[in-house]
Amino acid sequence: MIIVMKPKAKAESIEKIKHLIESKGLDAHISAGKEVTIIGVVGDKSKLQDQNLEIFEDVDKIVSVTESYKLANKKFHPEPSRVQVGNVTIGGGSLVIMSGPCAVESKEQLLTTAHAIKKAGAHILRGGAYKPRTSPYAFQGLEEEGLQYMKEAREETGLPVICEVTSLEAIEAAVKYVDMLQIGARNMQNFYLLKEAGKSGLPVLLKRGLSATIDEWLNASEYILAEGNPNVVLCERGIRTFETATRNTLDISAVPVIKEKSHLPIIVDPSHATGVRAYVKPLAMSAIAVGADGLMIETHPNPSTALSDGPQSLNFEQFDKLMKELSPLVALMGKTF
Amino acid sequence: MIIVMKPKAKAESIEKIKHLIESKGLDAHISAGKEVTIIGVVGDKSKLQDQNLEIFEDVDKIVSVTESYKLANKKFHPEPSRVQVGNVTIGGGSLVIMSGPCAVESKEQLLTTAHAIKKAGAHILRGGAYKPRTSPYAFQGLEEEGLQYMKEAREETGLPVICEVTSLEAIEAAVKYVDMLQIGARNMQNFYLLKEAGKSGLPVLLKRGLSATIDEWLNASEYILAEGNPNVVLCERGIRTFETATRNTLDISAVPVIKEKSHLPIIVDPSHATGVRAYVKPLAMSAIAVGADGLMIETHPNPSTALSDGPQSLNFEQFDKLMKELSPLVALMGKTF
Amino acid sequence: MIIVMKPKAKAESIEKIKHLIESKGLDAHISAGKEVTIIGVVGDKSKLQDQNLEIFEDVDKIVSVTESYKLANKKFHPEPSRVQVGNVTIGGGSLVIMSGPCAVESKEQLLTTAHAIKKAGAHILRGGAYKPRTSPYAFQGLEEEGLQYMKEAREETGLPVICEVTSLEAIEAAVKYVDMLQIGARNMQNFYLLKEAGKSGLPVLLKRGLSATIDEWLNASEYILAEGNPNVVLCERGIRTFETATRNTLDISAVPVIKEKSHLPIIVDPSHATGVRAYVKPLAMSAIAVGADGLMIETHPNPSTALSDGPQSLNFEQFDKLMKELSPLVALMGKTF
Amino acid sequence: MIIVMKPKAKAESIEKIKHLIESKGLDAHISAGKEVTIIGVVGDKSKLQDQNLEIFEDVDKIVSVTESYKLANKKFHPEPSRVQVGNVTIGGGSLVIMSGPCAVESKEQLLTTAHAIKKAGAHILRGGAYKPRTSPYAFQGLEEEGLQYMKEAREETGLPVICEVTSLEAIEAAVKYVDMLQIGARNMQNFYLLKEAGKSGLPVLLKRGLSATIDEWLNASEYILAEGNPNVVLCERGIRTFETATRNTLDISAVPVIKEKSHLPIIVDPSHATGVRAYVKPLAMSAIAVGADGLMIETHPNPSTALSDGPQSLNFEQFDKLMKELSPLVALMGKTF
Repeated sequence: MIIVMKPKAKAESIEKIKHLIESKGLDAHISAGKEVTIIGVVGDKSKLQDQNLEIFEDVDKIVSVTESYKLANKKFHPEPSRVQVGNVTIGGGSLVIMSGPCAVESKEQLLTTAHAIKKAGAHILRGGAYKPRTSPYAFQGLEEEGLQYMKEAREETGLPVICEVTSLEAIEAAVKYVDMLQIGARNMQNFYLLKEAGKSGLPVLLKRGLSATIDEWLNASEYILAEGNPNVVLCERGIRTFETATRNTLDISAVPVIKEKSHLPIIVDPSHATGVRAYVKPLAMSAIAVGADGLMIETHPNPSTALSDGPQSLNFEQFDKLMKELSPLVALMGKTF
Repeated sequence: MIIVMKPKAKAESIEKIKHLIESKGLDAHISAGKEVTIIGVVGDKSKLQDQNLEIFEDVDKIVSVTESYKLANKKFHPEPSRVQVGNVTIGGGSLVIMSGPCAVESKEQLLTTAHAIKKAGAHILRGGAYKPRTSPYAFQGLEEEGLQYMKEAREETGLPVICEVTSLEAIEAAVKYVDMLQIGARNMQNFYLLKEAGKSGLPVLLKRGLSATIDEWLNASEYILAEGNPNVVLCERGIRTFETATRNTLDISAVPVIKEKSHLPIIVDPSHATGVRAYVKPLAMSAIAVGADGLMIETHPNPSTALSDGPQSLNFEQFDKLMKELSPLVALMGKTF
Repeated sequence: MIIVMKPKAKAESIEKIKHLIESKGLDAHISAGKEVTIIGVVGDKSKLQDQNLEIFEDVDKIVSVTESYKLANKKFHPEPSRVQVGNVTIGGGSLVIMSGPCAVESKEQLLTTAHAIKKAGAHILRGGAYKPRTSPYAFQGLEEEGLQYMKEAREETGLPVICEVTSLEAIEAAVKYVDMLQIGARNMQNFYLLKEAGKSGLPVLLKRGLSATIDEWLNASEYILAEGNPNVVLCERGIRTFETATRNTLDISAVPVIKEKSHLPIIVDPSHATGVRAYVKPLAMSAIAVGADGLMIETHPNPSTALSDGPQSLNFEQFDKLMKELSPLVALMGKTF
Repeated sequence: MIIVMKPKAKAESIEKIKHLIESKGLDAHISAGKEVTIIGVVGDKSKLQDQNLEIFEDVDKIVSVTESYKLANKKFHPEPSRVQVGNVTIGGGSLVIMSGPCAVESKEQLLTTAHAIKKAGAHILRGGAYKPRTSPYAFQGLEEEGLQYMKEAREETGLPVICEVTSLEAIEAAVKYVDMLQIGARNMQNFYLLKEAGKSGLPVLLKRGLSATIDEWLNASEYILAEGNPNVVLCERGIRTFETATRNTLDISAVPVIKEKSHLPIIVDPSHATGVRAYVKPLAMSAIAVGADGLMIETHPNPSTALSDGPQSLNFEQFDKLMKELSPLVALMGKTF
């Protein structure tokens, strides 16, 4: 931690801070410049966490030099993590495809989809039973009934299944039916939910918040990891910017940034990032090429009647074609599909 | 709702949509332009909610002309609402000041603060017992013990009290102790929590999400209102932008925009919006002048040792001075203080 | 300047940087922490400007502790500046109102406006003769003919006049006719134009770029100041965010931030910030209350036929009413109008 | 164009607008809904450009259904354009690599670079002689001397050369020395410069502004095209968002969006987008996979002493290695390199 003093900071202000730092058993290294003095704090800075150094007299700003997340930090865990979901491994040498409808609408819709995506080569079935919707008057999901269908789809196809959870009740229901929990973008800083997901014992897919920095995202993953659950996969799904040509702006750089800062696997969701079916293929290609560990792609038997997010969903024929088109790139990247 | 067709849309594509609209008992008004054809849908558009018109062939885009929120909408409730919190009315001719520490740290800290802000003229005591923090290693709040102190502070001073809630458990505890619930920015789209807050029977202060549009914010309030709870107050606390000189960017325009679109009262939190003590006064002034119904201002007996958000807190002397400085402007705006 | 090394930086990497710093006649203060080592650079850091320290081996990041602007910096010029425009002083104890049409359309339009705003109490006439427009097919301004009308308006009313310039040619023409140059948001980082405006000898109003940080804005002002022209006034006119309820988001905090970092006067343009006539008054009120030195408000004899930005323009009756409504607040703030 | 009326709009307000539209020789199609009435305008909407329909009584908003750019629009030019720069074609079946230093610093630096990048397989040499820099005290470029070196580099290597221009003087100098002009992000809406670049007769590379929407970007290209210069290439170089882990956020979706809306070629600059050398390769991969027509990649003989943007530059060995790594992906995409 570095404390930058204001120009013309009084000697006693500097001395007071130095004294405080040393009283906590830390060292204060003072560098007196022509214009400003800076104080480097050496030692375990958590001993200072009760102090708001920023408001001490003559302090200009505090600069952190270490990240606040530990368990998600590559510095302390240099090897990339692998997360096991049923018989599928995310984060090793494979490119994992999660697919299925945004919302589970009926047993038939889900089972038809499960069979179709399995045939096309997908690895995990996704489906929403608890839908966070902007308006209270929009379809909110089938809840436990939807989870039941997810389980049946797994039994029929052997595909592991993932479902978004939005409350403790949803987690308590989901653990009985699914293989992986999803925390959606709107709940990325619902810290209570993160802790409960951590306690569930299931692997967790953590989507990035609409306006979350990468640092906040990794701190959110830390809430899950700190509960003793190491099985976290991150999912970039677009951030909110001023651009309106796409629903969100896919932050493709997030993949290499995460790969540098963390050992956690990261996948990309091109369907939600753009909200436009025609852009799913090019963005899927870019995600594989940038080094993502997988993709989440929406599919639906009949996108024109989907109760949620139809415009970005692929029908089965389109999905099958996409899988064939992605295949050579996956191979070029040295991954298995 | 307006359906804009792509240039050179085929006649059968237009006919197909027209047929669908009419089959639902609605009217389709077709305007064929030189370049594009548009279809105006007249009638109850909720009958079309199962259809993803955006992905029908030759459809370019769908333009909504009515808002999805109803209960929060000024069109259907032209009179400004007044929300009663204990003996305080928010939204009428008064300018309501909520003040207190970001986090309740001890009984003494809270009671001292309660007496000090009451003496200075504040109307409602705020204090956080459940703190959503970016890192799991930061102080998370005293939880029910903090709520207990809130209740004692009300008994001693007569000030109604407000506390942030972050889970159903927190709501279930809070209803026993406090007069108003607060939903924080990070939980603005935690729809499960919004519904539970709606059911609690207590008035709710709903902070704007860091990157929430005003439309999403009003839709979030609709989740509370739709539970039969009309007592919602909005709180603008800054949005996330590229600017880093302040912690967030206070969207001062949100006040007149909300006043035009909704009947709900709106207050402003200059402390969280900037994160800098020196900017609290000028932004408080601007919020009163723009027409806000109140302010939320952080105070602490000793900001330099506050466990949360110290840099933006005022000590009691500063708060007392601020209240005196705001007073003539409140009077000029024709409000009571 | 602070150099933060990567964890486990090699001793020779640190030594190499220390050696480089000292070879330039500066001092290197090394603070070796448990996890990371930081190097404080003491002395004239411009001696290091040819070195990209960020890419030296084992360097994590460079933290600047001093601003790159000098002439605009309050640290070296603690007294607020006053800028004289004809007989009007901006930045002292007055609240200066600039008003007029976004685009000069005809002599009659401009002269009518000039008389009307003078009668209502405005101090400076604004009018655009060179209009930067998103589309090349939109009205681009009357150019020198428009400047001629501006001059006539000044002669008839005595009001100083300001006009936006977008090229060297425009500056060369404008100096013959107007009292103050305006650099628009889109040209805030047209450094060539800033230098030429600096050389013109006229006072300059510098609008903030749509996505410019306050730091970049002050650096842009430095281009003008560095040409020996001390007469710069800043104008906050809204920044670009994700919110679409207003055309831009007025960053009201920019006023106190600029007041803390710089001695330059700052005014606010509520018309461009929102693009909506109904929001001009509340935002004008908030700007006065936050401490702005003036306002720029669009007026037009007949906003419904204005060739540029009609929706936000006030007609004369509305402007006259607004001036009367602002007056008590100006007085309360201790300013003259 | 669609005019959406306010709820309960008066019949005479609707009639007045209908009358105006028809008086201009256009048709007004009125759709009266339960809540709101909309008016579709059919015909040449440019006849209405002098009217601010938004401020007519009872008008809620105006929705445009056609883009304001024509020459850049794919609707009117469905075939992808090819732009010839010396002996290099951008936009056909090739993947064009532009490389070189951000700033030309000396003849030796530039010639060494030109030879090195040619050997590695690059197609066009880039180098900055006029540098737009945030601070007036940073290195501003060698100006015409730098252009002279560019010309010499072309003569020695045969590589076409491109240089950024920031003023009319710079354009007038550049046309004597270089093969392609670059308009930088900060000047994307310097419409005067765009027109002059259009008149120059040289092909133009137009970088996206830091906060420009894709629609504004295409409108900016229209300024060049409208001068009779069809040779425009777009360059995505990152937009400004709240994320700070990278200097900008590369909007990778811009490539497929541009491919859908326009016939102009588009390249990607991963160096400026991230500002971090380690991210250049993954982003270059993603750009090729998403369908870009080329890349702009910074190289420098000795990045640690580069006068501009060193941290993102590759040295020659790194660039050569990158070219070899990109090659199989270029082939997979069916392009030549």
